[in-house]
Amino acid sequence: MEVILADKYGFCFGVKRAIKITEKIAQNNPNTLTLGPLIHNPLEINRLEKNFGVKVQEDITNLGDSKSVIIRTHGITKQNLEALQTKGVSITDATCPFVTKPQQIVEKMSNDGYNIVIFGDSNHPEVRSVMSYSVKPPIVVSDLESLQQIQKIPKKVAVVSQTTKQIEQFLQIVQYLVSNAMEVRVFNTICNATFENQEATRTLSQKADVMVIVGGKTSSNTKQLFYIAQNHCKDSYLVEDENDIKAEWFVDKKICGISAGASTPNWVIKNVENAIKNLAQ
Amino acid sequence: MEVILADKYGFCFGVKRAIKITEKIAQNNPNTLTLGPLIHNPLEINRLEKNFGVKVQEDITNLGDSKSVIIRTHGITKQNLEALQTKGVSITDATCPFVTKPQQIVEKMSNDGYNIVIFGDSNHPEVRSVMSYSVKPPIVVSDLESLQQIQKIPKKVAVVSQTTKQIEQFLQIVQYLVSNAMEVRVFNTICNATFENQEATRTLSQKADVMVIVGGKTSSNTKQLFYIAQNHCKDSYLVEDENDIKAEWFVDKKICGISAGASTPNWVIKNVENAIKNLAQ
Repeated sequence: MEVILADKYGFCFGVKRAIKITEKIAQNNPNTLTLGPLIHNPLEINRLEKNFGVKVQEDITNLGDSKSVIIRTHGITKQNLEALQTKGVSITDATCPFVTKPQQIVEKMSNDGYNIVIFGDSNHPEVRSVMSYSVKPPIVVSDLESLQQIQKIPKKVAVVSQTTKQIEQFLQIVQYLVSNAMEVRVFNTICNATFENQEATRTLSQKADVMVIVGGKTSSNTKQLFYIAQNHCKDSYLVEDENDIKAEWFVDKKICGISAGASTPNWVIKNVENAIKNLAQ
Repeated sequence: MEVILADKYGFCFGVKRAIKITEKIAQNNPNTLTLGPLIHNPLEINRLEKNFGVKVQEDITNLGDSKSVIIRTHGITKQNLEALQTKGVSITDATCPFVTKPQQIVEKMSNDGYNIVIFGDSNHPEVRSVMSYSVKPPIVVSDLESLQQIQKIPKKVAVVSQTTKQIEQFLQIVQYLVSNAMEVRVFNTICNATFENQEATRTLSQKADVMVIVGGKTSSNTKQLFYIAQNHCKDSYLVEDENDIKAEWFVDKKICGISAGASTPNWVIKNVENAIKNLAQ
């Protein structure tokens, strides 16, 4: 069996940047916390704790004796940021710049009187952080059907997307808004890296007869890659590391494609690749 | 043969308003001109000349001894308006308010640094009037293919539509812009009356086996109705009045649908309806 890696996969700019920032801060501040996991990959989070002593704390009211707090790549809510600023700790912002952008857009547009529509999952920390910058409650929809159920689309709308969504679905949302509103300000906030990983996964899954996507189970962009792979290759699997792999997946297969989410470290991908190659021998 | 009129057809708000304004002005000003035809219907233009003495003049430098000039429903260019204001004539603006709106949007957006995209026919007087309000030359496209040929889509775009275009095609333009620009401000300037006439024509042409669309041959919205009818009913015809009708169209037909553009007067539609009913007897 041939094992092929996608042309583009793994760590994006924002994740690389956040890990670099975190390692540097943690070297000088032994008691460094991140508010929620820095990225959606438990293996990399474990490595940061083991090698750099970085702990994860979900609860902003429970910072213990830490004097150094890092904001995760997905950002935090405006309210939590304001609360954090009163705590006398040193704050390092590792929010991905591609997430800071929709936060700023939502704040400005809602201040300018536009009704905000966010295409994304309202439970995802990135979307929660972006939502919090709207002066009145935004409309958050994860698909076209949810948008169609909204009784009255406001006249003036500004729309952004969760950075890791698929452009095709975002365009459906935009189409519906344009058909039902007077003015729609569309900000294409989907991240290029996401798009490139998605395109490479699409291409590879069209020729592979088994696809393995490597990434954290809570990672939105990893799940998107998995859905894209599944669309073209019915035998697609999502794994966190090499332990999730089952030998039976590869029986009688000719081409195994591998791709990985933007928060999946290279060393995890390498372990998965080696494990598959060992099975194939 | 059954003859059915579409649920919505004929004169829109802007045309009714312009005719009312023109009749009133012409009653008190014997030498009234319109700059270009008031609406795209030669029969109604003839009636206004015959009954109210209203003449059509295309050339702004040749107003003769007229002291009363009416601006047509489609509007005129900003440059022509400014020239007209120096001529010492009384100016009456019969521009449809739904056309004034994209003029104002284009002026404001281009002043705010947005690159203007207009979905429409660059030869149509309405589009020429809207184009003239852009501080730098706008991109004008009549279909998606023309837009795809543009080498580089600007980062910040504001897009409007000719009022009489189909929403489905406008949405294709928007989709392409959103996929290729950073920010797209979408103003849905398609007129509701156009939309309602189109919907009613679509519904009727799905059950009719012959469709007759009544309207001026230069009327954009009439042509749109004709294309929609043709899509659902292959035996569709565009007529200016009852003289264009041919008996052979109705041989062995069961249902004849009639619709009419937004600039088609009721008396013309009635003549066509009567002529068809006479043939069917």
